[in-house]
Amino acid sequence: MVSPKTRYLVFFQYSGTKYSGVMETSADQSGLGVQNYLEKAAQNLKPVVPIKFNISSRTDSGVHALCNSAHLDIQRAPGKAAFQERQLIRSLNHYLRPEPIRILSAHRVTNDFHARFSALSRTYIYRLLVGCTHHSEVPVFERDLCWAPAGGYLNVPAMQDAARFLLGTHDFSTFRSLNSETPFQSPVRTILQADIQPSSGLLSHHYEYRGLEFWELKFKSRSFLYRQVRRMVGALVAVGQGKLTPHHIKELLEMKDARAFPPYAMAPPSGLFLESVEY
Amino acid sequence: MVSPKTRYLVFFQYSGTKYSGVMETSADQSGLGVQNYLEKAAQNLKPVVPIKFNISSRTDSGVHALCNSAHLDIQRAPGKAAFQERQLIRSLNHYLRPEPIRILSAHRVTNDFHARFSALSRTYIYRLLVGCTHHSEVPVFERDLCWAPAGGYLNVPAMQDAARFLLGTHDFSTFRSLNSETPFQSPVRTILQADIQPSSGLLSHHYEYRGLEFWELKFKSRSFLYRQVRRMVGALVAVGQGKLTPHHIKELLEMKDARAFPPYAMAPPSGLFLESVEY
Repeated sequence: MVSPKTRYLVFFQYSGTKYSGVMETSADQSGLGVQNYLEKAAQNLKPVVPIKFNISSRTDSGVHALCNSAHLDIQRAPGKAAFQERQLIRSLNHYLRPEPIRILSAHRVTNDFHARFSALSRTYIYRLLVGCTHHSEVPVFERDLCWAPAGGYLNVPAMQDAARFLLGTHDFSTFRSLNSETPFQSPVRTILQADIQPSSGLLSHHYEYRGLEFWELKFKSRSFLYRQVRRMVGALVAVGQGKLTPHHIKELLEMKDARAFPPYAMAPPSGLFLESVEY
Repeated sequence: MVSPKTRYLVFFQYSGTKYSGVMETSADQSGLGVQNYLEKAAQNLKPVVPIKFNISSRTDSGVHALCNSAHLDIQRAPGKAAFQERQLIRSLNHYLRPEPIRILSAHRVTNDFHARFSALSRTYIYRLLVGCTHHSEVPVFERDLCWAPAGGYLNVPAMQDAARFLLGTHDFSTFRSLNSETPFQSPVRTILQADIQPSSGLLSHHYEYRGLEFWELKFKSRSFLYRQVRRMVGALVAVGQGKLTPHHIKELLEMKDARAFPPYAMAPPSGLFLESVEY
């Protein structure tokens, strides 16, 4: 007798600093992915077949998620009832406890639901710390969780002007890094939101006297190209530093060539957070 | 020829999670203190005599500092000029780089200046995360940096009423933990400030939809007794949870007995930050 499988959509959070990224890595690779830990925790549920997490949104090494998502199927021994959502969350979080990974919620879904392909959009935020003259001025509590670009303050209105060129549907070839999927993927994406807003840090009101400011860049799209957000952020920061003009962003888009992107300009992973996946 | 020594006051920041506290530990103790790392970094300055940090304010294992202070004397080889303040900061931060410890500033002071005894007051803040029903709901980025008391929301106005009883000069015997210094220390302290204010977390605006709120308790005094802040916070949280009334705080003070303190009520170290030392 084969017991039926139950599909769940789970939302989860992680600090990406110590992982090779969200995706599972094989034993011969140096660092482990968040998925390795999720699946290891899920084995404690004693499923009939090993549980596989189908991650909705890839994030690179050092990139964080306030909320990523995945679907998984659980097939229990005959006669055992399907896990309740609350039970699943508590149990997975129990086994994940030593890791900076946490299940936020779980939802039973139909068997044709796919975490990656059913997603309507993804929202990323990028945290900038402005006002540091040297990297050692980054508060220790904010290390690995923001980017403090060198060179003092940023011209935020110019960055906001530049961000408007990224909105809407464009060929983003200049704003992607090349990888094995490049030949098979359309470079056209539609940016639904590209905002730059003041933000807060952990205890940031205690840093104001030192002139430190937090800013948050927010990007929403159905999907993004490989490293697109880090390239867009880096180019906008270059505008804020006066190295590029807002109009250069338009010109970079029109070049449609990854090699046209200023090589110094890609933002580091530490400031990037997947904020949400919308269904 | 003996070269003159130069005394500096340094302000420094650290995340206390992985240290046994700020004070130096000897080789036979299990964890190292922040001071061990400061002194190890300072040895790279090649002083004629080993550099000793005289820490102004003790903090326990797991307690953080936005800003602690210490004085130190540097005696260089004959003919070598005294370090400039900026040079000292940069150099120490270079050697401290792998650690979550950072020198914020350095100031040349006279040889009779003492970081501990010259301090006029200390300010501590305690970060509470309110709205979690289970510890696994604490955002991974806030772990070790706040306390999420069990049992939902807190009656903040009652806590504010209770905090007023702590203000001013009192015998705080009930609010200290006993240690080897207890017999030699007066239990009388003067609390200059005891505030409870809304606060922010790292990306806390992204948590509002889940009902998570950050609150910050702030205490200022010339000095504090052993674990006094954690005991005062724990008692105020018990008031916020309805386990004690504001008037119980007054009664606890009047008992003048450490054993009268509710044993469940001491707040954990993770939420405590030394915010500043004033001279």
